[in-house]
Amino acid sequence: MNKWIAVDWGTSSFRAYLIKNNIVSERIETKDGMKFINNNSFEKTFISLIENWLDDYQTIEVLASGMVGARQGWSEAPYQETPCDLNNIKFISPLINDNRIALKIFSGISQIDQPDVMRGEETQVAGFFLENPNFQGSICLPGTHSKWIKVKDQNIVKFQTFMTGELFEVISQNTVLKHSVKSNKTDQEELLKSVDLIFKHPSLFGNALFKLRADDLINSRNKIIYKSRLSGYLLGLELLGSIDYWKKSKIALIGNKELNKLYSYVLKDRVSSIVFYEAEDMTLKGLKYFKEKIK
Amino acid sequence: MNKWIAVDWGTSSFRAYLIKNNIVSERIETKDGMKFINNNSFEKTFISLIENWLDDYQTIEVLASGMVGARQGWSEAPYQETPCDLNNIKFISPLINDNRIALKIFSGISQIDQPDVMRGEETQVAGFFLENPNFQGSICLPGTHSKWIKVKDQNIVKFQTFMTGELFEVISQNTVLKHSVKSNKTDQEELLKSVDLIFKHPSLFGNALFKLRADDLINSRNKIIYKSRLSGYLLGLELLGSIDYWKKSKIALIGNKELNKLYSYVLKDRVSSIVFYEAEDMTLKGLKYFKEKIK
Repeated sequence: MNKWIAVDWGTSSFRAYLIKNNIVSERIETKDGMKFINNNSFEKTFISLIENWLDDYQTIEVLASGMVGARQGWSEAPYQETPCDLNNIKFISPLINDNRIALKIFSGISQIDQPDVMRGEETQVAGFFLENPNFQGSICLPGTHSKWIKVKDQNIVKFQTFMTGELFEVISQNTVLKHSVKSNKTDQEELLKSVDLIFKHPSLFGNALFKLRADDLINSRNKIIYKSRLSGYLLGLELLGSIDYWKKSKIALIGNKELNKLYSYVLKDRVSSIVFYEAEDMTLKGLKYFKEKIK
Repeated sequence: MNKWIAVDWGTSSFRAYLIKNNIVSERIETKDGMKFINNNSFEKTFISLIENWLDDYQTIEVLASGMVGARQGWSEAPYQETPCDLNNIKFISPLINDNRIALKIFSGISQIDQPDVMRGEETQVAGFFLENPNFQGSICLPGTHSKWIKVKDQNIVKFQTFMTGELFEVISQNTVLKHSVKSNKTDQEELLKSVDLIFKHPSLFGNALFKLRADDLINSRNKIIYKSRLSGYLLGLELLGSIDYWKKSKIALIGNKELNKLYSYVLKDRVSSIVFYEAEDMTLKGLKYFKEKIK
């Protein structure tokens, strides 16, 4: 029986999959993100999380990607530079004390001329290639650090990261706007209007933010309105900045359901085609893709 | 002897001045900002802070401005709308229990068509008018919420607020950039280059931010460089958004020394003239100005 473990160990969460004959037989998800782990306890933490899957008489292969390979991670897997062929992705095998596992951590990708980095997203792109080997266009991975990636022939040609999600988080939690944007819903009309406003006047971003607060003090509208405006301003700024990636292009979105919906709603009339995939699914498929390639 | 108390009670600090015959005889500055005071203890807190200045047999006039007049403040002094003549500024006199003081809290100013608000800045503008009664042009008050204000004939005609300082704070303290921008110094050349970059490509703001982090991971430059870039991107975005206020205009800057220096360095070759004043000094002079007007 072919048996291995796929691991997506990121900054704030841990996911592992026990795979038997190409099918996920068990899955673990915990909040043990890299940022909560002490420098010397990665191996110990990892073993304790997946102990049940280990066999004293057989070494199991563990394939991991994400921040686990960062300098502050378990062991540094140096960046590979763009343009980067995902069929030749590199990995490191750090020395470990437990001989029940054989660990491979895949590299992230860096870009030198326009400085940028990714760790984990390349795995999702590889997962997408597993199902779309001939795709040529741009892939967007919306999130904390939204990434726009130009791909061709299973290569990552170039990419561009925007701090959209992280800006949304700190602005809505740590600034004077926090009282005005407390809503989990989005008003799509307000969202589109706000995207359009920033498309026309990107330099009014900092003023548009304060106007949310002033409008609330003066007019006290429903908080859905203000939250939708904030989303729209941030999304608008990202889309205007990434226009070379999506204008009249074929687009693939890889994100969670909510972000895929938001982005496709705003992009649908501006791109030549759009498909979307779920991020976790792509990570798992990407590790399978890498496993095939390094055989 | 003419004796009164001037008060600048803001969100995060408290300042009071005992003024005798038009001269500051004593000054108190504490961290008792509005946000730390319980709803019902404004009077008690205030009295305890300035108790030494009170006389059991004489009522002293107290003139206050700033967030003390906000809805969440001591007592709400409703906004006056733009255009607003600072010679006719309104005030409220909330009922208080201690007859040793007679309190007047001055209004803030709101703008309806392009929603915006100020509380405290109008006092600094009034202080500037005390020395420059015929000034016609724009006044910039750089800070947490930078304000650009068009003035004419001692009127506030219109204004525009940018969240520049607050964005700098949350980005440099709460995002992935926090490790890269830890520096108190500014490299002026790097600052100017970053302002120019955002002037040309304002929509790349979110990407420019992430590039700071990526550049640090790849090139590990001195943190002064990254901090100067972050300042430059934020300042550039504000200046591009406020261009109608300063382009070929007469400008007055009212801020702290550091911000006045930063802003005048970037603006000096782009405006027709520039003068600067210290913010605390203008607040005090503004309260004197209002005191004259309400006689």
